[in-house]
Amino acid sequence: MKKIKLKVPATVANLVCGFDILGMAVHEPYDEMEITISKGPEITIQHEDPFGLPEKASENVAGIVLMKIKEHFQLTHGFEVIIRKHIKPGSGLGSSAASAAGAAFGANALLGNILSREEMIHFAMFGEELASGVRHADNIAPCIYGGITLVKSTHPIDIIPLNAPDLFVIAVHPQVEVKTSDSRQILKKNISMKSAVEQWGNIAGLVAGIQKNDFALIGRSLNDVIVEPVRSILIPKFDEVKMKSLQIGALGGGISGSGPSVFMLAAEKETAKKIAQMMKSVYDEIEVESFVYVSKINPAGIQVVEES
Amino acid sequence: MKKIKLKVPATVANLVCGFDILGMAVHEPYDEMEITISKGPEITIQHEDPFGLPEKASENVAGIVLMKIKEHFQLTHGFEVIIRKHIKPGSGLGSSAASAAGAAFGANALLGNILSREEMIHFAMFGEELASGVRHADNIAPCIYGGITLVKSTHPIDIIPLNAPDLFVIAVHPQVEVKTSDSRQILKKNISMKSAVEQWGNIAGLVAGIQKNDFALIGRSLNDVIVEPVRSILIPKFDEVKMKSLQIGALGGGISGSGPSVFMLAAEKETAKKIAQMMKSVYDEIEVESFVYVSKINPAGIQVVEES
Repeated sequence: MKKIKLKVPATVANLVCGFDILGMAVHEPYDEMEITISKGPEITIQHEDPFGLPEKASENVAGIVLMKIKEHFQLTHGFEVIIRKHIKPGSGLGSSAASAAGAAFGANALLGNILSREEMIHFAMFGEELASGVRHADNIAPCIYGGITLVKSTHPIDIIPLNAPDLFVIAVHPQVEVKTSDSRQILKKNISMKSAVEQWGNIAGLVAGIQKNDFALIGRSLNDVIVEPVRSILIPKFDEVKMKSLQIGALGGGISGSGPSVFMLAAEKETAKKIAQMMKSVYDEIEVESFVYVSKINPAGIQVVEES
Repeated sequence: MKKIKLKVPATVANLVCGFDILGMAVHEPYDEMEITISKGPEITIQHEDPFGLPEKASENVAGIVLMKIKEHFQLTHGFEVIIRKHIKPGSGLGSSAASAAGAAFGANALLGNILSREEMIHFAMFGEELASGVRHADNIAPCIYGGITLVKSTHPIDIIPLNAPDLFVIAVHPQVEVKTSDSRQILKKNISMKSAVEQWGNIAGLVAGIQKNDFALIGRSLNDVIVEPVRSILIPKFDEVKMKSLQIGALGGGISGSGPSVFMLAAEKETAKKIAQMMKSVYDEIEVESFVYVSKINPAGIQVVEES
């Protein structure tokens, strides 16, 4: 195989109460990536999208991952990468993770599956480090494993794949800027033991609900007493979107990653559609452009579209 | 039915990282309780054990639970209770919870199953409140539900029964006094976000491991970075017992409840026996009397021995 085309999905990190440990793959939006083994030693990146991302390999999220893989295996050849990004950078929907995970996944396939999933995570984290300064895996892991994943540890890499309940995910991306770094800085360095205990009750409930396919338990566990109260103030209309979603019948939801996207889970397609319409109209009212995505939890993660 | 005899099991609260939310029923030790509907209105308690616990109903853990049930249902009759306690008070193995849960469970059966399990928890928590000043359910819940339980909330009562993996539980009770109230006071009121995130990664891993019957995952999730480092200093030889248990082949373990008992989980009977012997000899060496119990996780909780 010399060339591979991939669909690399958006991901929702944190899942409300699971700050820095949980993540979930969805079907929409997704990036398209084509990776080809090149004759020359160079790694070339071409972005066929309007986001103006850097194309120099060492400054590109996919590029740096491929550089690290090339270096590690002392490859004499390079890679040519074409990326058509649909997951908007800065949306909180795992845009950088998609490029990083796609690069690691694609290179692995082209090199004859020489990497374990943990090793793909290892290399992909160099992309996240470039994008945000932090070697985190909460978006990369569900991208590579599919479904919902628990990042139990990144030193050593310990990823636990959880179930992928048959639920709709509704995500809205209002066009306001929230930088991950700002969003991290406003978090408290210390929290009360009381809140921590409440939070880990919710996390335990959420994991149990996911494993038992107990939608009601998932719903009443999607409650974040630590991060959401602080971060949600950066997202216009967050409280209104959340309240109205619950009224329509969402199981629950909250900030996707560090925002500004907001996601909700719903068991029924009709409910999901109504939530999507409501989200759009809330942001239309305040004249903030928004993009709304409705899909199911994606049990497979990255999908191979073509190999040649 | 006028009389019921029960075996009410010991319980291990917290399960290392699940402070205040997780608990597990075991088979050994257990209390024996006989509850009879009496002709007169009094609630009488008789302890056929050497622990000198108060027998006045309002000062007795089982007594207060029955008083609350009698009051709530405006019962005209009373109860006669005989308790043969084998779970030592102050052991950290859920001694007060056994009396409280046994009283609620027994009264419910005698009254024709008028209580849901949540309502049994509600009444049994009056016993825990009498014993420790706190209406907590981490020991009561596994006693009544069996297996491993998650107390997601006590206001409202929200108990999630988890799986009961086929594992051995080895518990040692060294005869030193650690009061629950002291043990609570030494805990920090605030914790770092970094530790909290590590802790909830372990909790999520533990719940996932329990639900997947993944013993290795259970083992590497039994890690408490918040409570154990502080509380274990109250328990002589804690570090030695833990280290040697892991060397012998325990999956993991830690303080049972607020101590001083220490528990370990093991997959094999031979491993469990060796750990039990080692525990005994560690405390023999420093001339601290100790009791060691080996049994499996108890999937059923309270057991009815006789009804008449």
